[in-house]
Amino acid sequence: MTTVGILGGGQLARMLALSGAPLGLRFLVMDTVADACAGQFAPMIVGDWRDERALSEFASKIDVATFDFENVPAESAQWLAERVPVFPSPRALAVAQDRLAEKTLFRELGIPVPPFSAIDSREGLDAALATIGTPCILKTRRLGYDGKGQFRLKSLADADAAWDALGGQARTVGLILEGFVAFDKEVSVVGVRGRDGEFRAWPLTQNWHVDGVLSASLAPAPVSQELEDKAIAHARALADALDYVGVFALELFCRDGELLANELAPRVHNSGHWTIEGSETSQFQNHLRAVLGLPLGATRMVGEACMLNWIGTMPDPNAVLAEPGGHWHDYGKEARAGRKVGHATLRANTPQELAQTLARVGKKLGRESQVEPVIAALR
Amino acid sequence: MTTVGILGGGQLARMLALSGAPLGLRFLVMDTVADACAGQFAPMIVGDWRDERALSEFASKIDVATFDFENVPAESAQWLAERVPVFPSPRALAVAQDRLAEKTLFRELGIPVPPFSAIDSREGLDAALATIGTPCILKTRRLGYDGKGQFRLKSLADADAAWDALGGQARTVGLILEGFVAFDKEVSVVGVRGRDGEFRAWPLTQNWHVDGVLSASLAPAPVSQELEDKAIAHARALADALDYVGVFALELFCRDGELLANELAPRVHNSGHWTIEGSETSQFQNHLRAVLGLPLGATRMVGEACMLNWIGTMPDPNAVLAEPGGHWHDYGKEARAGRKVGHATLRANTPQELAQTLARVGKKLGRESQVEPVIAALR
Repeated sequence: MTTVGILGGGQLARMLALSGAPLGLRFLVMDTVADACAGQFAPMIVGDWRDERALSEFASKIDVATFDFENVPAESAQWLAERVPVFPSPRALAVAQDRLAEKTLFRELGIPVPPFSAIDSREGLDAALATIGTPCILKTRRLGYDGKGQFRLKSLADADAAWDALGGQARTVGLILEGFVAFDKEVSVVGVRGRDGEFRAWPLTQNWHVDGVLSASLAPAPVSQELEDKAIAHARALADALDYVGVFALELFCRDGELLANELAPRVHNSGHWTIEGSETSQFQNHLRAVLGLPLGATRMVGEACMLNWIGTMPDPNAVLAEPGGHWHDYGKEARAGRKVGHATLRANTPQELAQTLARVGKKLGRESQVEPVIAALR
Repeated sequence: MTTVGILGGGQLARMLALSGAPLGLRFLVMDTVADACAGQFAPMIVGDWRDERALSEFASKIDVATFDFENVPAESAQWLAERVPVFPSPRALAVAQDRLAEKTLFRELGIPVPPFSAIDSREGLDAALATIGTPCILKTRRLGYDGKGQFRLKSLADADAAWDALGGQARTVGLILEGFVAFDKEVSVVGVRGRDGEFRAWPLTQNWHVDGVLSASLAPAPVSQELEDKAIAHARALADALDYVGVFALELFCRDGELLANELAPRVHNSGHWTIEGSETSQFQNHLRAVLGLPLGATRMVGEACMLNWIGTMPDPNAVLAEPGGHWHDYGKEARAGRKVGHATLRANTPQELAQTLARVGKKLGRESQVEPVIAALR
């Protein structure tokens, strides 16, 4: 009997536990709050990430550890890695936690990135603005999540406001200025790498964000094979360089047929939720297979899939459940503004069928604006 | 927040909980043993079915009740139904629990059945043997499960032995003598009926038993459309007659292109396990949708599927996990002779691909005899 420990008890941990149960696994979740939604289906330890007593109890009850939440303090991950196997490794996590280290690695690997510069001071910001130009985005190097800790600069006149908002963090978590990319499309590679170095990727996913939060994903992304191959090659180079074990997502921008890497998420990813029904093997089960050294599952599509994210509150499930390819995912969380509370995946046998399904669901739920860009991409 | 109570905490309850989690449901399982495998993923109350205190606690914490185990005493189901909604109804359960009531209903509905007769005494057995002939099977009317409580008579000379084995139960649970059917094929209809009477069935499944226990299932069953339609019509008539709510299986024999009903299982069924990966909606989720009055999900196939049952001990998972369409289900149970400990589902896009996958898996696991009849049926 193998027990997998998961740091973080949100919906990712919940879906990991649900998809890992058929492998005969048991789970133990650790979270800082007692009502974390994974706790509805797995035993849980509640404690702060730096609480050595809680971490110690957690370590003593598990065979291997992984993450639902990548911003666990690097020292906590390291402390744990000295006691049990931890995948992905604290080193891979550390790179992904730091936008500067991440973008520097992208560049070293020949993966194109938007212009960026580390910012240590107000003067440094001015100097970087002169090189990078506007529009651009000032971001904290660490602990960013879904658009928090970011300030968009439309012109040089925004420099003072940007510094007022984030300058205080220049000496703590650090800052980075990134050129803004006027992209045509956002895509992500959801990939998995095994303990033995085997690499697989799901078909490329196209993503739409609203207010910095994922709103919809479509797979396979309607792009050329050449572009898809290039994106997947970047993801593979990155995973190999980090000796990465498990599932990760590489988010990229597409502009005029060119790719620019945005960021690496060192965990199962919201843009891979469609794999539960739309692929032979879900990202959740493949993450566990990788972490445990089991054979990786096929990442081939089963039809066409679109994922719609539910933010804040759950809509009426019946509109989705009544669709032949409608699949519902309620994370069992309380409604709260801006919170990811669930998603739906719509699966169909053809792009046309998927577009029709999306149109019906969008209309029934009064969410036309959420489905319209996806329908347009399917045309 | 809706909590579904499940009477019985075996693998069926476990798979119900895993497939119901995405609907935002919570579960509470009741079982007579503390290590029931559903307890690994859902809270559990341990108590005897007739323990009113345990039942009372169970009833107080749930919104609706259903079954993993249909042989819960009828009085316990009735007691519960007076306190919370129970689906399927205790009446449907009572019919399915009693082979005589079940076969009498089949006959009333015009569903062909093998010859049968209630047996009250040794003389009654002789009289029934004179009408039904041999080979035939003497069975207890109630509490039969996977070939237990059954005695096969090859000739009239076996009558004494049959009576010695089961005669003592003639006045307690009752006995029934059934003509033996020299069938070409065993098939099952896995169907679901909603609270509003809507009925859906998955494509017909062909089944193979070894020593009275299911060994393999193949869907869609390679039979004529006419035969499939007839089988599904029988299932629908039965569900309507019982005002059935939830998933059930109707097992039938095929002989010379004719169908003979064998038995009704008033719950999700082993011959429907392939629906987890092989169908748009699994039997587990559709059972919950039915019980909760939600729209039923599509029962269309997603490719071709074969389920292999693991009895006693789990084989090496890697042979299955390495297959592109290989899906593993370890129920988290301890190995024990005759016990259902897990299954695998192999999914493929064509019957030919499925046959090749089965041949590889059978060989790697040294289980050629388990896969060969399925491969033969796919030719």
